[in-house]
Amino acid sequence: MTAELRVWAPDGLPEIAPGDDLVALLAGVLRAGEPLEDGDVLVLTSKVVSKAEGRYVAAADREQAISDETVRVVATREHAGGVTRIVENRLGLVMAAAGVDASNTPAGTVLLLPVDPDESARRLRAGLGEALGVRLGVIVSDTAGRPWRDGLTDIAIGAAGIQVLDDLRGQVDSFGRLLVMTVAAVADEVAAAAELVKGKATGRPLAVVRGLAHLVTDDDGPGARALVRLGEADMFAQGSAEAYAAGWKDALAAEAGPEQQQP
Amino acid sequence: MTAELRVWAPDGLPEIAPGDDLVALLAGVLRAGEPLEDGDVLVLTSKVVSKAEGRYVAAADREQAISDETVRVVATREHAGGVTRIVENRLGLVMAAAGVDASNTPAGTVLLLPVDPDESARRLRAGLGEALGVRLGVIVSDTAGRPWRDGLTDIAIGAAGIQVLDDLRGQVDSFGRLLVMTVAAVADEVAAAAELVKGKATGRPLAVVRGLAHLVTDDDGPGARALVRLGEADMFAQGSAEAYAAGWKDALAAEAGPEQQQP
Repeated sequence: MTAELRVWAPDGLPEIAPGDDLVALLAGVLRAGEPLEDGDVLVLTSKVVSKAEGRYVAAADREQAISDETVRVVATREHAGGVTRIVENRLGLVMAAAGVDASNTPAGTVLLLPVDPDESARRLRAGLGEALGVRLGVIVSDTAGRPWRDGLTDIAIGAAGIQVLDDLRGQVDSFGRLLVMTVAAVADEVAAAAELVKGKATGRPLAVVRGLAHLVTDDDGPGARALVRLGEADMFAQGSAEAYAAGWKDALAAEAGPEQQQP
Repeated sequence: MTAELRVWAPDGLPEIAPGDDLVALLAGVLRAGEPLEDGDVLVLTSKVVSKAEGRYVAAADREQAISDETVRVVATREHAGGVTRIVENRLGLVMAAAGVDASNTPAGTVLLLPVDPDESARRLRAGLGEALGVRLGVIVSDTAGRPWRDGLTDIAIGAAGIQVLDDLRGQVDSFGRLLVMTVAAVADEVAAAAELVKGKATGRPLAVVRGLAHLVTDDDGPGARALVRLGEADMFAQGSAEAYAAGWKDALAAEAGPEQQQP
């Protein structure tokens, strides 16, 4: 277990256009700064990946784009500006507006999440590893809200070459007892640490984290998809209001008798 | 906005006993290591505060202790070992078992969260500021699960002298457009970064974060309580199963007519 971490945000990545070679651009920025070492972790804002992939949609088509990215609506809320949809998107991420984003994009456009952020992380890891001659972990991050807590935090939506969960079960605590409950979502914590230096408005979508070599793996690993916990284990599959309404409706249908239920 | 962050976990804090003077013990550890500077942020695991406060309860009384810490049950789940209760506790934190913890405590005991982690952070900030002659931010952290994501992350449950939310609204993005949605929960991100170096089983419950002086404030500020978002804004006040059951029950009561409803 390391006892020190350094996180820095290299400057100089240009605005990314569709089709840009991200590996080449990132390698250029990283070569110009402090040399990377084996075991460093690179954290890249997903927006940069989306831009290279040309994932732009006209702002007028935003609602349709959200629908297209949606697997399942979790909750909706009306407000002055319209309706916010909290949904599970095709990546298994539960996010407002499915992660479709309107900040830091050209006027009149919104930006979808990358097609496959785990695959993006794997490509970046392989390409940068070759270009720079180092063994890296790569995380693709995005910003998300969470229930019960105010404010947004960055999470890992793509990962390669880094343990996303650090399973401490089986280790003993300082009283010699087995730790039974502790699986740390380290990839999300790394994304959060990186966000503290990247910032939102500063044009630094990239951070290097040094000191976590014990989490960097030889193989690409399962990616950030392994952080998704939905289905049976999900106690919050629907917003409270939506679940309450569903219970009400089903009770009335059951009262009315099977022959009167809608299919 | 800083472009570099350093996080390290000083060694040498002894096992804490009820009544211990945490300021004196921490000051000793911090004096023995790299000198702190104005603008450093200290992150301390809440367990250490609880131990100094003597918040031990006999393990046999664990279920009652959870009930006593509970303001409201959010969701419950049966499993082989019993029933896990996800509750809102008296600190406004939604946590499994109300945050009552059985790891790293003496055999036969469990540990409650500190009485008032924001007040603890304020006392530590004042005491350490005086002992070390530096202006610090202080965060008291704990480990929590979250819906939809596997693994646990550390969050801030107490804070003093540090902005807990970094409101970027009003700043412009790189296209000159106002950022309207972005309020970063920086105190939670700092707690997460600190956890990456503290670890769980290593006996280092303390981390120093350097590079966030722009978030450190002259006054104590509103504390981590400002990160709690419950009530009207909470779309997940009940687990889906609990809300569904409540809807069902209320529908049947409404069908039965007002004279037959339970009060």
